[in-house]
Amino acid sequence: GMANSRKMVFNDEGIPPGAWKEALENGLPMQLDNFINTIHSKNLRNSVFADVTANEVLATKYDLLLQKSISVVACNKVACSSSYEYYRKLKDLASDFNAHFLFETNVGAGLPVIGTLNDLLRSGDTVNRIEAVLSGTLNFVFNHYNGERSFAEVVKQAQDEGYTEPDPRLDLSGTDVMRKIMILAREAGEHLEMTDIANNSFMPESCMQGDVANFYQEMAKHEAHFKALYTEANAAGKKLKFVASYKDGKAAVGLQHIDPQHDLYHLYGKDNVVLFYTNRYVEQPLVVKGAGAGAEVTASGVFADIIRAART
Amino acid sequence: GMANSRKMVFNDEGIPPGAWKEALENGLPMQLDNFINTIHSKNLRNSVFADVTANEVLATKYDLLLQKSISVVACNKVACSSSYEYYRKLKDLASDFNAHFLFETNVGAGLPVIGTLNDLLRSGDTVNRIEAVLSGTLNFVFNHYNGERSFAEVVKQAQDEGYTEPDPRLDLSGTDVMRKIMILAREAGEHLEMTDIANNSFMPESCMQGDVANFYQEMAKHEAHFKALYTEANAAGKKLKFVASYKDGKAAVGLQHIDPQHDLYHLYGKDNVVLFYTNRYVEQPLVVKGAGAGAEVTASGVFADIIRAART
Repeated sequence: GMANSRKMVFNDEGIPPGAWKEALENGLPMQLDNFINTIHSKNLRNSVFADVTANEVLATKYDLLLQKSISVVACNKVACSSSYEYYRKLKDLASDFNAHFLFETNVGAGLPVIGTLNDLLRSGDTVNRIEAVLSGTLNFVFNHYNGERSFAEVVKQAQDEGYTEPDPRLDLSGTDVMRKIMILAREAGEHLEMTDIANNSFMPESCMQGDVANFYQEMAKHEAHFKALYTEANAAGKKLKFVASYKDGKAAVGLQHIDPQHDLYHLYGKDNVVLFYTNRYVEQPLVVKGAGAGAEVTASGVFADIIRAART
Repeated sequence: GMANSRKMVFNDEGIPPGAWKEALENGLPMQLDNFINTIHSKNLRNSVFADVTANEVLATKYDLLLQKSISVVACNKVACSSSYEYYRKLKDLASDFNAHFLFETNVGAGLPVIGTLNDLLRSGDTVNRIEAVLSGTLNFVFNHYNGERSFAEVVKQAQDEGYTEPDPRLDLSGTDVMRKIMILAREAGEHLEMTDIANNSFMPESCMQGDVANFYQEMAKHEAHFKALYTEANAAGKKLKFVASYKDGKAAVGLQHIDPQHDLYHLYGKDNVVLFYTNRYVEQPLVVKGAGAGAEVTASGVFADIIRAART
């Protein structure tokens, strides 16, 4: 079966990969509850449900699937960054009903971040500290902004090149990064809610009010603010990075000055990096780095999760 | 069941973790064929055989286990770096008999190197190039050698701190790194033998003849050679790293001058790093970095493999 926001289609023989667009266009009108009920009525054992949307309602239905032993693979971050209670419920259902709940792409797209963290913990290690740059968007913006073009123009470029969420304020505000560090902290065993995470935002408040057009206007007005951030870091020989951290049960996100010796300094394009400091990786962290945004690397991570769910 | 080079023990009820030493000491004399036959006679389904030795003969027996659907987990590199034919046979047997043949710790100890490579390929990516520092020993040596203490003394320190193979010439000659890049290239789909790998050794030939005592004596005699290597790199603002590379079907290992902008530059202690350039990770590679040697991180990687084999 297959669905988008408008149509849905089921075929007991499978949907030919080359003809999925046509099959979907000729499908029934999409109704989420109908879609879930059809899955249930077909009593599909060992099947995998893949959510490649960012839909909030869909994320509230995962429990209905896991309860029927249907594995859920999601690049959608909503479920894992909703209430701790729901996140916990989904993990427990997966375990109780012998299904998988996999979401490697929630953090760092196709990079092996959550799988690595799970392996460390399963084999008896303890994560003491995480430091990470988890926003391809913010990394792109701060890598391209040097005071020559305005900050607003660089943000617009990131949006035009497809590196931002549909509403770029989710990236610029740090909300998306808060979600990601919360998911990592939860996977490391911490009971955290979004309200527990400190966000030292660098954005003037007026930018975050109103609509996206207002956002760009306000950013342009505050160019001096952004230029000062850049100039100060640059004068000290440092780079600006929007860093997420987790330590001693606390998580925080915010802009930091990074010096050239640091693992976070050499990070280009839309790359992400995660540093795990554990009982075994004490002096030097275990580091995973690479493109952390983009359709292709995200699709590859979703696919790897589907294979993982299907094999077991 | 459990065995070391002297004793072996089987217990149908399991061996209590706290009492394994005693149980083993009171066991029967170890005979490898007996050990394998006992495993067969017990007809153990879904069991896992873990080889945490560096034994050459033991590695030739994996086929007997896989044929009985017993999964093999090995930190022992011998099997995967033996003939391509035997490596291929073991992979095929694992597939045919629905067992696992896992050896994550063959490269980078507990770092997620082989698993990440497998995920990339399984999800349809192609590996175009690998660049890596894969010897904790050589990294330790070149990080500590600055011409003040002799090269031989620094190597001795690495051996005393447990970072070398029992015969440190396996590390210093580059043989161990050749094995590792060959395993990565094979996992990436390449049909390679050890003789296909170029080794641009930095060691004077006389050091590699005779026994370990001779090795240290000859290194001391050639101090000027090592000092010249260091001085030349240092004068150019570079670091010496022993780099393994794979590109266009060819693999090579050798000492290189690395400049500060490069991902291989900031690599301390006994850390390893692997850079995967693929169809999806084109401009910037997917990077995995961290402690790549030591009993604890290796044990953690073996344990993660055992869990992986046992779950499926």
